[in-house]
Amino acid sequence: MRQRVASLLETSWVRYGILGVILFNAAILGLETSKPVMAVAGDLILFLDALCLAIFVVELLAKFFAYRLSFFRNGWNVFDFVIVGISLLPSAGGLSVLRALRILRLLRVVSVAPSLRRVVEGFVTALPGMGSVFVLMGMMFYIGAVMATKLFGDSFPDWFGTLGDSGYTLFQIMTLESWSMGIVRPVMEVYPYAWAFFVPFILVTTFAVVNLLVGLIVNSMQDAHHAEDNANTDAYRDEVLAKLDAIEQRLDRLGR
Amino acid sequence: MRQRVASLLETSWVRYGILGVILFNAAILGLETSKPVMAVAGDLILFLDALCLAIFVVELLAKFFAYRLSFFRNGWNVFDFVIVGISLLPSAGGLSVLRALRILRLLRVVSVAPSLRRVVEGFVTALPGMGSVFVLMGMMFYIGAVMATKLFGDSFPDWFGTLGDSGYTLFQIMTLESWSMGIVRPVMEVYPYAWAFFVPFILVTTFAVVNLLVGLIVNSMQDAHHAEDNANTDAYRDEVLAKLDAIEQRLDRLGR
Amino acid sequence: MRQRVASLLETSWVRYGILGVILFNAAILGLETSKPVMAVAGDLILFLDALCLAIFVVELLAKFFAYRLSFFRNGWNVFDFVIVGISLLPSAGGLSVLRALRILRLLRVVSVAPSLRRVVEGFVTALPGMGSVFVLMGMMFYIGAVMATKLFGDSFPDWFGTLGDSGYTLFQIMTLESWSMGIVRPVMEVYPYAWAFFVPFILVTTFAVVNLLVGLIVNSMQDAHHAEDNANTDAYRDEVLAKLDAIEQRLDRLGR
Amino acid sequence: MRQRVASLLETSWVRYGILGVILFNAAILGLETSKPVMAVAGDLILFLDALCLAIFVVELLAKFFAYRLSFFRNGWNVFDFVIVGISLLPSAGGLSVLRALRILRLLRVVSVAPSLRRVVEGFVTALPGMGSVFVLMGMMFYIGAVMATKLFGDSFPDWFGTLGDSGYTLFQIMTLESWSMGIVRPVMEVYPYAWAFFVPFILVTTFAVVNLLVGLIVNSMQDAHHAEDNANTDAYRDEVLAKLDAIEQRLDRLGR
Repeated sequence: MRQRVASLLETSWVRYGILGVILFNAAILGLETSKPVMAVAGDLILFLDALCLAIFVVELLAKFFAYRLSFFRNGWNVFDFVIVGISLLPSAGGLSVLRALRILRLLRVVSVAPSLRRVVEGFVTALPGMGSVFVLMGMMFYIGAVMATKLFGDSFPDWFGTLGDSGYTLFQIMTLESWSMGIVRPVMEVYPYAWAFFVPFILVTTFAVVNLLVGLIVNSMQDAHHAEDNANTDAYRDEVLAKLDAIEQRLDRLGR
Repeated sequence: MRQRVASLLETSWVRYGILGVILFNAAILGLETSKPVMAVAGDLILFLDALCLAIFVVELLAKFFAYRLSFFRNGWNVFDFVIVGISLLPSAGGLSVLRALRILRLLRVVSVAPSLRRVVEGFVTALPGMGSVFVLMGMMFYIGAVMATKLFGDSFPDWFGTLGDSGYTLFQIMTLESWSMGIVRPVMEVYPYAWAFFVPFILVTTFAVVNLLVGLIVNSMQDAHHAEDNANTDAYRDEVLAKLDAIEQRLDRLGR
Repeated sequence: MRQRVASLLETSWVRYGILGVILFNAAILGLETSKPVMAVAGDLILFLDALCLAIFVVELLAKFFAYRLSFFRNGWNVFDFVIVGISLLPSAGGLSVLRALRILRLLRVVSVAPSLRRVVEGFVTALPGMGSVFVLMGMMFYIGAVMATKLFGDSFPDWFGTLGDSGYTLFQIMTLESWSMGIVRPVMEVYPYAWAFFVPFILVTTFAVVNLLVGLIVNSMQDAHHAEDNANTDAYRDEVLAKLDAIEQRLDRLGR
Repeated sequence: MRQRVASLLETSWVRYGILGVILFNAAILGLETSKPVMAVAGDLILFLDALCLAIFVVELLAKFFAYRLSFFRNGWNVFDFVIVGISLLPSAGGLSVLRALRILRLLRVVSVAPSLRRVVEGFVTALPGMGSVFVLMGMMFYIGAVMATKLFGDSFPDWFGTLGDSGYTLFQIMTLESWSMGIVRPVMEVYPYAWAFFVPFILVTTFAVVNLLVGLIVNSMQDAHHAEDNANTDAYRDEVLAKLDAIEQRLDRLGR
């Protein structure tokens, strides 16, 4: 029974059916943002959304029945489980944000379509190699936020009042958005040497971001280089060495 | 007859003549934007523009006569056909936009000049390899637009009132233009946790754009690497293997 | 005695202990920015900060006792010495900035954690190779600042009044922040041809920054390429040459 | 005589002397921007500037005397000649801009210092390979400017009134500076579909800039790859082929 459910779940028409339901559900949730549409067909849309959710729950239960606890060993199943689970939480009270999170179900397309899956897995595997740079950037933000809060917090409480405010403002400055006309020039009217804090901060964080980018490029190049070039080269090298060995053996026989 | 027209169209003086007409037409359409020039010589300019268009139509008809339906097999012919066709549509009524599109005829330079053609073909062939990343970015924009519309649409109808408004605003945020001072700080005055939506959105979309860039670089490097290095290497490898075979054959003869 | 202190300092529990003190100290200095926390537990926090500083001083003295003058030969020791030294300077009077610099102690994490150390060393070793480009950019900024001060200084003293003001404004323009709406459009209302100075400045500095980036990528690629690929290739080449030599020797013996 | 002047000009103390005069002159021209300094020592500064200029003129005359017309064959000599020539033009009347251009003399450092010279030559030799992309970008700007002038010129004469205005505004939009909040949102209040012109313009020009960058990286990589790797590889390959030939010859002799 379990085997039959598992093989049924892996047939291509079930996969394409689920993909269709995901896309249809995304369109339904898109229509839900339109007030005129909701005024005319609100009940129908809410019903169709509930129907899609029901299909997802049935699919997950079937998968869980088929694979049992090994269901949770696959990261993508956990991903689906969390996304569908969010939609089942009661969205009453202050948690109306949860209603907005339901559109995250569209992300299930990634777990269903293998080509998207590979791209996301590529993104994710690139992250650990950059761990040290992320730690360094986190440190620079923490140091910058503490310094900015102490130096400018009293005069500019909106931007640098707390560590959190300073962190957000420094993130804005790192993205170079309105850093000078919006933030640093006003600050310099009170503290004329403020540029001595902000300009080095920009240079250092930009340089760190550039190094992240360079690291990504070099890693990707090497992976691509290996996967392809070496199969070819290795075959050639093995052939040359085999031929040289054969020649040596014949010469040995001749010499005897 | 058809053959003679085809060979006439391929002579270099016809090609350069057409190139000259395209550039002259672009200059004419540029002059058309100047009110003082139009006040003095408006009729002449409109006449010259019509003359250039007539030459293009004659050229296209000649090509169509020469190649018949195989005319449409070449993508660049279709490109020329569409661009000239736009200019022939009536520009009366609300369609005055069509008059502005006539300058697109300058793009015909690309179909005439082989070096530009190669660059554009290089751009276009680079696109399909990035298809998955484009689909992912489209999904992120759709998810972001639905969430932003639901969360912030009521308080900020200008920016997040409809899915389209939200999509445009999120595109602006992805380009980092005024994202903080212009959009997110005002939103945070109403929803203090709005940064928890926008900062991850910026990080994820920027990371996706960076991955597009890395993919482009890696692909270009590999194409360049192959085209050039391998011809050389392959010749060397073939020569080494041929010599080793020759040595083995002579040893066989000696051993006999 | 000196040996025993040195070996004690290198045990892993001393290293991890120091790392713990650094992180604890960073958290303490973070809490110091919060006014409600300081109102409740200000004395405790100041005491804990002084305690951490005392531990750092003891550690540095122990290192100095163990290694004597060779202590200063290691760049990271000098780095620790300067950072701890800053905290010992009296922060009274106009030097309240020094209090804000105490958070720089968190940077000691870099000198303790080998993986971060390697990343920072990678950053620093990349710099000299770009020295010429930095000199060129410095020259462009100096030339741009002198020209902007002479041309626009009288009309826009806030932006271009002195060499320093001009340099800061040109840095802002190089980062593309509000360069047009904020600076160049207002300047163009007085000097209509101002774009002829600013647009080339943007193009040239952006091109120089791009060349820095390209240089970084190419250098990193080559380092990675070498470290890995060549060990493999060299071993293969040595093997081929050795086999060819062996074949020649046997042929010599046969020919005799 | 000519020989002796030529060899004198190439001695290292003349070169370093000229370098010193260039740097001193740049400092003098920097001081000239400071009003308090000019009030105190204006005459001295103007005299020192004239003295430096005189030294440059003497140096150029000496070079011209030594090398005659072959003087103009070296691009860097022409560069020096033009830069010094600009300073000799009368700066009276409306040409006060020429006074500001005198700081360009600092660029002579590039023609004197070989390492800077190589960087600049690297920049310049990278340009022709990107010629086609520059032509395409020029075309896109011309097409964009004509279309924007026709579509939005009447309602927004400041931004899109003439081809020149439109070109400048489109350049600003390409750098993403205030493109949405500053330009496109106001335009969309009059023409709601204006985004359909600007968003594709941003995507296409950004993509072209990215392709320029990718082209630069690939070219630099290949140059670096060649310069270094191939010398090594070629020597190895020649050795292998020579050994194989030697083995074949000995086998021929054995077979006889």
